[in-house]
Amino acid sequence: MSLIPHFSIDLEAILHNYMCLKQISSKTQIAGVVKDNAYGIGAERVTDILYTKGGCRSFFVAYAFEGAAIRSFAPQANIYVLQGFSPEEAALFSQNNLIPVLASTEQIKQWFQLKPNTQKAALQVETGLNRLGITKKEIAELSDEQRSCFGLIISHLACADDAKAPLNQSQLAHFLALKPFFPQAQFSLSASDGFSLGPSFYFDIVRAGAFLYGINTFPSLREKQKSVVSLTARIIQIKQLKSGDTAGYGGDFKASDGTKIAIVSIGYGDGLPRCFSKKGKVWFKTQKSWISAPVAGRVSMDNLIIDVTHIPEDILKTQNDVSLLNEHYTVDELGTDTGTIGYEALSAIGHGIRALRTYK
Amino acid sequence: MSLIPHFSIDLEAILHNYMCLKQISSKTQIAGVVKDNAYGIGAERVTDILYTKGGCRSFFVAYAFEGAAIRSFAPQANIYVLQGFSPEEAALFSQNNLIPVLASTEQIKQWFQLKPNTQKAALQVETGLNRLGITKKEIAELSDEQRSCFGLIISHLACADDAKAPLNQSQLAHFLALKPFFPQAQFSLSASDGFSLGPSFYFDIVRAGAFLYGINTFPSLREKQKSVVSLTARIIQIKQLKSGDTAGYGGDFKASDGTKIAIVSIGYGDGLPRCFSKKGKVWFKTQKSWISAPVAGRVSMDNLIIDVTHIPEDILKTQNDVSLLNEHYTVDELGTDTGTIGYEALSAIGHGIRALRTYK
Repeated sequence: MSLIPHFSIDLEAILHNYMCLKQISSKTQIAGVVKDNAYGIGAERVTDILYTKGGCRSFFVAYAFEGAAIRSFAPQANIYVLQGFSPEEAALFSQNNLIPVLASTEQIKQWFQLKPNTQKAALQVETGLNRLGITKKEIAELSDEQRSCFGLIISHLACADDAKAPLNQSQLAHFLALKPFFPQAQFSLSASDGFSLGPSFYFDIVRAGAFLYGINTFPSLREKQKSVVSLTARIIQIKQLKSGDTAGYGGDFKASDGTKIAIVSIGYGDGLPRCFSKKGKVWFKTQKSWISAPVAGRVSMDNLIIDVTHIPEDILKTQNDVSLLNEHYTVDELGTDTGTIGYEALSAIGHGIRALRTYK
Repeated sequence: MSLIPHFSIDLEAILHNYMCLKQISSKTQIAGVVKDNAYGIGAERVTDILYTKGGCRSFFVAYAFEGAAIRSFAPQANIYVLQGFSPEEAALFSQNNLIPVLASTEQIKQWFQLKPNTQKAALQVETGLNRLGITKKEIAELSDEQRSCFGLIISHLACADDAKAPLNQSQLAHFLALKPFFPQAQFSLSASDGFSLGPSFYFDIVRAGAFLYGINTFPSLREKQKSVVSLTARIIQIKQLKSGDTAGYGGDFKASDGTKIAIVSIGYGDGLPRCFSKKGKVWFKTQKSWISAPVAGRVSMDNLIIDVTHIPEDILKTQNDVSLLNEHYTVDELGTDTGTIGYEALSAIGHGIRALRTYK
């Protein structure tokens, strides 16, 4: 075992989660969202398995360079670029046959002036999130011919994680009201979390990212969804403290008599949030289940100190590693314990981790 | 201008900051800390300039693989590996002539059994941080011969950022008490933030990382220290809202009549903390100085919404980008505004950012 952490990604679990979503509706295509390097998991590997084994033929990325990176893994797929188009990226669109999700009247003008490829563009429309997208008024001002050039109309929900939020129905109504403008186009309103709002939110394409990666955006599928990532880190040293000793920066952790700590080889330099200091825990596997040890003191760049006073001696002696993410403690729990959401927790670790990265 | 952010790193500023520290003491060697890919800045580039133009001959990394990555840029330097040694990494130590900072009696045993190269090892000693390091008792149990095999004795301060903390003097006393055990070795107690504690904390080597990268660990050098990183992101769209409109996830931001927002092409997928939603701001350059615009609503993975109601029209019309890090708003301020420290803010962006990265 090397001193660096071990980040393990279960590609079969991603495929399994994708197939779960596919079974929900025969009329709706499930696209794979692989932006941000598939939330740090690895866009090439994810695209490859979804394309070859899942039959996925639509992918969403944020930037043209991300689309270029996956093109060879999904040669016949539609690859949509969510931030839209800028003239400086025309060559990337042309070489990789990417589809921009045009988000402003300026982007529309630039795209049709340059027309880097023969793909029908997609259009981001504003329905209430007030992020990217053009308004109904701006849509009405386009000519019929211009509107006929769009193959996919997209919007994005602001409150899909809260089924009771009035904004969901309001966004749905606004989205439906745009259908007459685009009689030939496909429509897509929901991402992973839109599934829990029911079939009226599905339209032609649902853009699935988070759910594929083990983030529980769909409580009723919790039982079926598989855990995707696991993370372990090496215990370098175990120390017996005495009452009055402190540990870590600022001396924040105060020991009692008999306190035992372990120094673990992972830190905020690996994307583990520094605020994990407050509510963080790591896990030891026992024969039957898991037991946790709390983080002691502040997380530093390369190390984590944990309180292992209550961990049985036979476990401490035989286990060289602690688990930070596993099927029992997922990125959702890590997100909650660090005051954020699973999406950010996964992305931060996926990008920051210095690890042996294995795909199974 | 491409749609992706622009992350610019001023290598000359890093060199300048290094030379500032060198001038503080003629007796103390200033080592370059380039672990964690030089806090996300790029370890190869930083090592290269410190070695060729700064005359730096000691570098610290966390892991052997990080040492291997910089070896060709610092062919004659001592490269110290702070997490120590494990047998699985023997080949990396051997091939790159790396020096382990041995942190436990187990690591000491393993290193001297395998002895992958002829370098004198370094030793991490416990003086009160209670992180990695062996105790005085364990040191006393080593033989004279074993102790003579160490070329550098290291410890690390828990409270160097707080000159009044009693732990500083206590750690200093513990460290000094170890000198008789190692009459031939060099000693190193302080990192960047130890400078502010005065010359008695300098010893033979100070390990400088944060200060080089523009993190202000040394208030009395604030005027001399140069800003190192700057970050800009593209405004994709500007929207006029009306009273009652909301923006972003959860509808968290509420507009008044006349509210104007801008959608910016950067998000937490780029290492910008999601909690930037609460106190975040971005900057527009005016002829004379900078004006800020607050973050409106929640940061999403790829986008940031900002409130630009009060930004003059001529600035909005002519500036395609906002600044997130500049000489006026550094990683220290970003850290404070996101409830953390500059170290984590820089590392997260350095690792996460999808950007054109330029070095000057």
